[in-house]
Amino acid sequence: MNVAANKKAVILLSGGLDSTTILAMARNEGLECFTISFDYGQRHRAEVIASEKISKHYDVIEHRLIKIPLDTIGGSALTDLSIDVPNKVTKGIPVTYVPARNTIFLSFALAVAEVVKANKILIGINAVDYSGYPDCRPEFIKSFQELTNLATKHAVEGSLISIDAPLIDLTKSEIISLGHSLGVDYSLTVSCYSATNDGLACGKCDSCRYRKKGFYEAGINDQTRYINS
Amino acid sequence: MNVAANKKAVILLSGGLDSTTILAMARNEGLECFTISFDYGQRHRAEVIASEKISKHYDVIEHRLIKIPLDTIGGSALTDLSIDVPNKVTKGIPVTYVPARNTIFLSFALAVAEVVKANKILIGINAVDYSGYPDCRPEFIKSFQELTNLATKHAVEGSLISIDAPLIDLTKSEIISLGHSLGVDYSLTVSCYSATNDGLACGKCDSCRYRKKGFYEAGINDQTRYINS
Repeated sequence: MNVAANKKAVILLSGGLDSTTILAMARNEGLECFTISFDYGQRHRAEVIASEKISKHYDVIEHRLIKIPLDTIGGSALTDLSIDVPNKVTKGIPVTYVPARNTIFLSFALAVAEVVKANKILIGINAVDYSGYPDCRPEFIKSFQELTNLATKHAVEGSLISIDAPLIDLTKSEIISLGHSLGVDYSLTVSCYSATNDGLACGKCDSCRYRKKGFYEAGINDQTRYINS
Repeated sequence: MNVAANKKAVILLSGGLDSTTILAMARNEGLECFTISFDYGQRHRAEVIASEKISKHYDVIEHRLIKIPLDTIGGSALTDLSIDVPNKVTKGIPVTYVPARNTIFLSFALAVAEVVKANKILIGINAVDYSGYPDCRPEFIKSFQELTNLATKHAVEGSLISIDAPLIDLTKSEIISLGHSLGVDYSLTVSCYSATNDGLACGKCDSCRYRKKGFYEAGINDQTRYINS
């Protein structure tokens, strides 16, 4: 089974700014997109709703919402409600880090890619304007690519799946400028770790700060709906 | 946080022969065991019940049953009831292969290991008497180890988690002999892909064939409860 020439891509879509930009890029390149979102017990469930709307907006082949119980594992402010989301930047890897999250997300993407016969997985991670999460670094992606080349029946039969992180070296403002040039409506997206169910952002968490700074530096009007604004 | 010297191990426990043997080995070495089993929509749900019984039997610190919807992804005779389990050995990687299963299982084990501060993950895969699954090979484990060394906050802070597959080079009869010497009661375990909910084995699938042959070659009485026996 040679899938090298097909145009199918599996896209990890959180419903945030970065992953929506890569979906827009993929559609702009004419790829047939299979989006995956996770209901992992995250406090900011607004992103799940956003990912559905965005998938429809971009007319994807299929959107999957995969329910996995990371809240029963805990160890993060995003999955354990007893740990507060910091409202200022902290030193080191912040408590919003979710243990092994991107390893888990990419593993499911690999399973879906193998079943739908996609030859590409796209992930919107970024290692410039980010919180220092270990599983957002280029070396992590390189290592997951090596694992992918060994892990599946697909790979053994000669059809490799590429793991692409096209935003990894861009600043947040570069990402926003890129998305803007592709017509992305960022008001559809939710980045805030403490977003209300209606998608209103706190404006204070790490994720909000990087996003705000990005719009400011890109000179693009920030259409994010903030609480009390 | 240095966990190098602790005795905590996360063990992927399917409820089958191999993983039960590694649990017995780990307990024999005095490790504090955290077992994980998956309800992934597999047809042989008897293994879920077996894994609970076996965890109790070995007095583990904690047994987690993690529910993940691999049946909605499909692509395998074990997760898609419309694909029959072969009752004879087939050529190549069989249809019982589950896309990215061990990558997904190890990813969750990694998350749990990080949260409970274990420095070891044990997986009972075997690359001798096996069905040729790509994610049971030594090179797959080596690659997942490299990923592990990059993927977590734990690793960035200098506490590495080892991924150990102590049975990988053993024949099934060697595994059974080893378990037997440790007093493993294999009648508790379920290997059959088509096991009934009561844990009765078909005796015909790949998994049953390797198991039967193993007991025969080890010269140990096979206490597996077969249908019609």
